[in-house]
Amino acid sequence: MTHAQGGTALQLYSTVKQEGILEVSLADVPIPEPQDDEVVVRVEAAPINPSDLGLLFGPADLSTVQVSGTADHPVVTARIPPQQQSAVVGRVDQPMPVGNEGAGVVVKAGASTPGQVLLGKTVALFGGAMYAQYRAINAAQCLVLPEGTTPAEGASCFVNPLTVLGMVGTMRLEGHTALVHTAAASNLGQMLHKVCMQEHIGLVNIVRRPEHIGLLKVLGARHVCNSSAETFLDDLTAALVETGATLAFDAIGGGRLAGQILTCMERAANKGGTGYSRYGSTIHKQVYIYGGLDRSPTEFNRTFGMAWGIGGWLLTAFLRKIGPEAAQTLRERVAAEIKTTFASHYTRTVSLAEALRLDAIAVYSKQATGEKYLMNPNKGVE
Amino acid sequence: MTHAQGGTALQLYSTVKQEGILEVSLADVPIPEPQDDEVVVRVEAAPINPSDLGLLFGPADLSTVQVSGTADHPVVTARIPPQQQSAVVGRVDQPMPVGNEGAGVVVKAGASTPGQVLLGKTVALFGGAMYAQYRAINAAQCLVLPEGTTPAEGASCFVNPLTVLGMVGTMRLEGHTALVHTAAASNLGQMLHKVCMQEHIGLVNIVRRPEHIGLLKVLGARHVCNSSAETFLDDLTAALVETGATLAFDAIGGGRLAGQILTCMERAANKGGTGYSRYGSTIHKQVYIYGGLDRSPTEFNRTFGMAWGIGGWLLTAFLRKIGPEAAQTLRERVAAEIKTTFASHYTRTVSLAEALRLDAIAVYSKQATGEKYLMNPNKGVE
Repeated sequence: MTHAQGGTALQLYSTVKQEGILEVSLADVPIPEPQDDEVVVRVEAAPINPSDLGLLFGPADLSTVQVSGTADHPVVTARIPPQQQSAVVGRVDQPMPVGNEGAGVVVKAGASTPGQVLLGKTVALFGGAMYAQYRAINAAQCLVLPEGTTPAEGASCFVNPLTVLGMVGTMRLEGHTALVHTAAASNLGQMLHKVCMQEHIGLVNIVRRPEHIGLLKVLGARHVCNSSAETFLDDLTAALVETGATLAFDAIGGGRLAGQILTCMERAANKGGTGYSRYGSTIHKQVYIYGGLDRSPTEFNRTFGMAWGIGGWLLTAFLRKIGPEAAQTLRERVAAEIKTTFASHYTRTVSLAEALRLDAIAVYSKQATGEKYLMNPNKGVE
Repeated sequence: MTHAQGGTALQLYSTVKQEGILEVSLADVPIPEPQDDEVVVRVEAAPINPSDLGLLFGPADLSTVQVSGTADHPVVTARIPPQQQSAVVGRVDQPMPVGNEGAGVVVKAGASTPGQVLLGKTVALFGGAMYAQYRAINAAQCLVLPEGTTPAEGASCFVNPLTVLGMVGTMRLEGHTALVHTAAASNLGQMLHKVCMQEHIGLVNIVRRPEHIGLLKVLGARHVCNSSAETFLDDLTAALVETGATLAFDAIGGGRLAGQILTCMERAANKGGTGYSRYGSTIHKQVYIYGGLDRSPTEFNRTFGMAWGIGGWLLTAFLRKIGPEAAQTLRERVAAEIKTTFASHYTRTVSLAEALRLDAIAVYSKQATGEKYLMNPNKGVE
């Protein structure tokens, strides 16, 4: 194994400039040396998740993307619309490293025992700055992957798998017994389906395109509703009656879907009910918005009684709530099932420089189901 | 005291007809006889609250109101728009009594001691069907008013006062330390202001019209923001910084106000913050919608991080949560302070028949601040 020439390696940074321009570029940074309790990991796989795109391109208008620089050191720029600039005023002129999670091989270790025992191991990492050839990290933050697991297989151990387990955990904590999920054909949606099958939890999958129905049905999904179908509200209500789901996790965020889910939950709650109640059912109906695939405003008619809630949901807040021991149990379950329940699928593997090409950005920035990219910061380096 | 002729008395009913017509009329019903544990109250005051209007006129289009019948027995009809008819399908052809709360004098009592000791007492009542000359009710549900309190003074002991105490109780239960309130110049808003003054709770009052600012300032309100002012978002943010309020109760429901409150709470949370966080502040920001003065859709841009919630809030659900003993303590506090903290103001007192006149409906159905009507079902009966 050879390191990058001259003791430096590539690291991707996203910077908001004073003048309303977003710039994404690669910097040559020194290969880090580990502190006593740290290891240095050669990152060989890091997914481009929707939650990374938020930091990578911020609120820039991607129709204005331009690429300059060289093939090895491309520089991507895009304009940030004036009305969005206030949202990123806190990060102006601060180059921000990107990449929530990844996996790689431990190539250096500090003096402490926890670090030393990791030398040579393939580990999964969570904590930002993974779009880099090397990442120094506390040894305790490394999740050792089972023997025979490649970095590519272990790259997505945290964001999607823990979100899925967090959804199921939230359901139990808040007294619900079944779930609704939107953008359900995604990698995350497929994982959630598998976990719900394992644990006999009713799951209503909502997809946006008819071709995604079959994808989930093939996996054994029982309830798949297409939100673009004319019969959507009736289909969803019927599935809610069957499952009794009163909790939804919504990756879309914008538009009318969250309100439609609450409306159908209320209709389902009132099926076989005991007459008219002007305040609606007393069953609490909840939608958590955990993503923002649709950036447009959220809009709803309040046609679902008074026992309802819509709120934000964030994985890190859930992990804080359950505490470090319970969180570690979840992580170990993910590692053990990373090739089965929590397996991810990618369309393409790209290097850091390839990820900044116009054609690549055009594909992965759509966040379309089945169009997910994996970054390998050390692709071609051997 | 004479009862209505022939042992019957008037009772108001609201009925949704099959053909999409709402009908409100007065029926002659037998004066009830009390069961052993009941009393019969001659209702002499019952407010027309926004929460009554929902049942009284449902989703009818009030621009289509017509009045027929006689002066003593008017019949009000109005059309229900087709898109609203599904919301009331559960109450078609069921005449529904109306009137959440009221006060009056106990004129008959069943054999049990709790009923007997109430004979002749002025009591406040909660439980529906108060737009009637007589109401039979369990003795335990009567709140005895302090000596020297008139039914008119005690008519609004429940909905507004308990809602106010429920807001403060919810704030404490959910770990907030200050409040935001919309439609703040209302009777309820003024009560909330007084309670917050008493208990040293920061309160941000949001009003919709400049003339309401003075009304609250005269009462000693420190933070009053006018949502129709151009500087509203900045004014609100400044008040939120000063009070630290992260919980709002919204009587409006529709439009953009709930989202604006969350946006300003997030801005306030980030003042003096420690740099950019892409997921926003970790402080939970909550808006509870408890009314629907604006029936239009609720709309918001999700520009307030991930730690937020919007939900419905209903007094009865709060009272269930705190349990009967705690609820009784709140009721007794209201009775003790009904002429001070929890005093209500009405523009006019009307009889049942007068309440169904076109000119009266036109005024009180607007739910405008300072235009509240009190019904006296026994007005003119002596």
